[in-house]
Amino acid sequence: MTLRERLHQQLHIGSWPNGKLTGLNIVVVWTILAAVGVSIAATEPLIREPYNREVLIAELIFGTIFLLEYLARIYAAPEREGPGSDWSKRWRFVISPIGLVDLLVVIVSLAPFFIANAAVLRVIRLLRIVSILKFSRFSAAMREIAGALKERSYDLLVCATLAFVLVLLGAAGLYWIEGAIQPQAFGSIPRALWWAVITLTTVGYGDVYPITPAGRLIGMVVAVGGVLLVALPTGIVAAAFSDAMQRRREAMRKALEEIEGNSNI
Amino acid sequence: MTLRERLHQQLHIGSWPNGKLTGLNIVVVWTILAAVGVSIAATEPLIREPYNREVLIAELIFGTIFLLEYLARIYAAPEREGPGSDWSKRWRFVISPIGLVDLLVVIVSLAPFFIANAAVLRVIRLLRIVSILKFSRFSAAMREIAGALKERSYDLLVCATLAFVLVLLGAAGLYWIEGAIQPQAFGSIPRALWWAVITLTTVGYGDVYPITPAGRLIGMVVAVGGVLLVALPTGIVAAAFSDAMQRRREAMRKALEEIEGNSNI
Amino acid sequence: MTLRERLHQQLHIGSWPNGKLTGLNIVVVWTILAAVGVSIAATEPLIREPYNREVLIAELIFGTIFLLEYLARIYAAPEREGPGSDWSKRWRFVISPIGLVDLLVVIVSLAPFFIANAAVLRVIRLLRIVSILKFSRFSAAMREIAGALKERSYDLLVCATLAFVLVLLGAAGLYWIEGAIQPQAFGSIPRALWWAVITLTTVGYGDVYPITPAGRLIGMVVAVGGVLLVALPTGIVAAAFSDAMQRRREAMRKALEEIEGNSNI
Amino acid sequence: MTLRERLHQQLHIGSWPNGKLTGLNIVVVWTILAAVGVSIAATEPLIREPYNREVLIAELIFGTIFLLEYLARIYAAPEREGPGSDWSKRWRFVISPIGLVDLLVVIVSLAPFFIANAAVLRVIRLLRIVSILKFSRFSAAMREIAGALKERSYDLLVCATLAFVLVLLGAAGLYWIEGAIQPQAFGSIPRALWWAVITLTTVGYGDVYPITPAGRLIGMVVAVGGVLLVALPTGIVAAAFSDAMQRRREAMRKALEEIEGNSNI
Repeated sequence: MTLRERLHQQLHIGSWPNGKLTGLNIVVVWTILAAVGVSIAATEPLIREPYNREVLIAELIFGTIFLLEYLARIYAAPEREGPGSDWSKRWRFVISPIGLVDLLVVIVSLAPFFIANAAVLRVIRLLRIVSILKFSRFSAAMREIAGALKERSYDLLVCATLAFVLVLLGAAGLYWIEGAIQPQAFGSIPRALWWAVITLTTVGYGDVYPITPAGRLIGMVVAVGGVLLVALPTGIVAAAFSDAMQRRREAMRKALEEIEGNSNI
Repeated sequence: MTLRERLHQQLHIGSWPNGKLTGLNIVVVWTILAAVGVSIAATEPLIREPYNREVLIAELIFGTIFLLEYLARIYAAPEREGPGSDWSKRWRFVISPIGLVDLLVVIVSLAPFFIANAAVLRVIRLLRIVSILKFSRFSAAMREIAGALKERSYDLLVCATLAFVLVLLGAAGLYWIEGAIQPQAFGSIPRALWWAVITLTTVGYGDVYPITPAGRLIGMVVAVGGVLLVALPTGIVAAAFSDAMQRRREAMRKALEEIEGNSNI
Repeated sequence: MTLRERLHQQLHIGSWPNGKLTGLNIVVVWTILAAVGVSIAATEPLIREPYNREVLIAELIFGTIFLLEYLARIYAAPEREGPGSDWSKRWRFVISPIGLVDLLVVIVSLAPFFIANAAVLRVIRLLRIVSILKFSRFSAAMREIAGALKERSYDLLVCATLAFVLVLLGAAGLYWIEGAIQPQAFGSIPRALWWAVITLTTVGYGDVYPITPAGRLIGMVVAVGGVLLVALPTGIVAAAFSDAMQRRREAMRKALEEIEGNSNI
Repeated sequence: MTLRERLHQQLHIGSWPNGKLTGLNIVVVWTILAAVGVSIAATEPLIREPYNREVLIAELIFGTIFLLEYLARIYAAPEREGPGSDWSKRWRFVISPIGLVDLLVVIVSLAPFFIANAAVLRVIRLLRIVSILKFSRFSAAMREIAGALKERSYDLLVCATLAFVLVLLGAAGLYWIEGAIQPQAFGSIPRALWWAVITLTTVGYGDVYPITPAGRLIGMVVAVGGVLLVALPTGIVAAAFSDAMQRRREAMRKALEEIEGNSNI
């Protein structure tokens, strides 16, 4: 096996026989987690100031690993299945969404060593959180979940519309009733929407709330509506998952029956 | 195809072959969304005052589109299926719920150009949110969901009754225990109901809360009851949806088996 | 049909052919609702004081209706199915739980007209909320739901235990970390339990919350645990309901197949 | 039956014919509950100080019961199934996880009578809450639930990842928008994470919340995302439970059919 084949096997999800993460991918996953962790911690002045040098070194290490990974992926791209010359396959990887994410991560990781402007650097540092998008490479399961939900997307859209109408009516109601009493909170429908969404999702910060009996009645309706609007999508999602699992089982039973039928002959 | 037939095809949901929204309906949907958006934004003084003229022009445009749509629907009404002369069909559309909604929206959209009284105008402006009811034309899916829930309406009613009893007992308990300590919040059962509903729905603004050990014990019971009373309707809704999907699948299987049975003969 | 038979038919749930509420039961249901409503409203000084006489009259009316209903139920009790003489059947109704509730409601409804002591009266007035227990007569559906949950009671008990352990560990953790900083809120585990329960149920009043990084970490764990501990019982309840519905459907299918099998012979 | 056999039967879960808790186990369960209750209450100065002596006596009693139970379990260990000499079976129980928990509970329960250092005692007192881990002996049902969830662990991991990404993006967004306005709450991503988690779990204490329109928009997105991220795992859990119940029923039906098939011969 050539180095290029081995690299491809190590970097490509699914090519490894037992379905587990390969050694190189484990390094990449941990580097992503560490890079995101460091870039989060580095925004905290209490951490940033005493450890400024350590943060810079860590960023340099992560950036170098991402650069090497990116180059290795380009080098090993011709091993991918499908027609085309080596260089056309490499070019296709570079301009694929996940290839562009890899490039972006390399750039934002190594930029601090080429750029001196502090304001630009601050933006780039924040952008480093996009490293987490590199995880989308491992997102087969997410696509499965998304597929199960897509079948029910029409029902979920209806739920969203109902929620939107309830939020709108709640906000309009409190604007009408308490707009003059609490102008800061309910002086316009856009302002009242903040209260309505935070109530319907049952978050309830308590920074704004109705104080008149009529306003509280509307508040109760929105709060109860929130409970029902949690129940509805949950029920739909549960049914969708349950259905997907049952379909799989029925398909397996049918396959088994066919095998039995053949063996009887 | 006459103009009237073409208009009907463009305006009527379901008459278009591929089930998608027709060109005219897309215009109507976007106009509704824009009209609701503008009437929400127009309640905000910070937006209203600098853009007063732009808002008026937008309202005039939306009102005119709704008026034209209304006239087109009346004109094309005879193309609907069913018996009756052209004019009786038109009259039936005008007095149907959705026809009255269309008329109301036209009136509240164009009223500002005929009425000068500021107080009346303010009410009419707020009423313009009813434009969103025009969406009920597209509500086939909502009726399906409502149908699935209706079968379980008795179970849901029991849940609602349990919730109501829990709210009542919680409010009575805190009125009894903390009525004298926090008279503003728990000085009567109607006042304590606000706290009880906001706790049972797990919104929890924090404007009122028990402060004595006994009151907090009741508060914990209501909060835990709230979690269970979310679980119950969610479970019922999930079972109802799951059941509806399974029934559909079984009906399909039976239909398939019959076809196979026929082909065996 | 004698008067006693007619009374029984009107008062007894289930004896009426079409399963709907009978005329007399409708009167009783509305009287219960009105009596509970009035006794709630009467605790509010702003309502109580100006309408003192109206409240008294309403209470007298409701008490009289409940008294007449109680006497009618005793009179018609012999029409119930089962062995025993007329008077033994009446006595069994009087000492049955629902009969005792009926008697209690009559007593607390009419007590204000025989007792003058204000403190005793205040307690009796509050007790009048027990009128709502008269609804338990209509609780067949609640028993069905309770039955479906009972089968899964062991799983639900495990959830409750997990929730209890999580609450306890969260409270102990914050007592350990912030007991000295916020002694009023976390100075002992019983005090910290209030915070833990209100967080786990995702109510979150905001009267007490952790302020140190370590305390907030524990707070996050309890909050996330709260979401999972909502998901778990909801999932169990949903599965229980789904299972009950499917069993009913399978039983029906089996019954249908048997009928078909018989008709084939 | 020897004393050792009787002790084993009384102490070992599952060896008793009817599956109910044995007399000795009931004593143990109540002692655990009482010990945890006393150690919780003892952290409250208002309870601790007036009842110091009573608490000490109770602790001594519970500690003695746990010690006797531990010795009895060691003595009866040879009755357990499996190969090995009496002493090797005893040693295996002592070093098993549940055996170590039993030993730890005995130590922390009786430590106050041998240690005088107040600071050490305070830690030991708090550790006494581990007594609740003795319940893990009864955790067969928990293992069943854990098993049902394990099959779906990949889906649940995806939900957790989605939740983590949403929390991270929400925190980064508010750090970007309101970091300068509310430095205490959003001055760094680690600080903003507290707000993001408390919002996503719909707890919503209200100690920190966005105050700018853009920040509120992000807050709404996180709050709505929180509702969906409750719906997703709930749906998965519900489907997993529903699936487990259905599999059990199908297995029973198959077993029944085989029995019928045999009896037909």
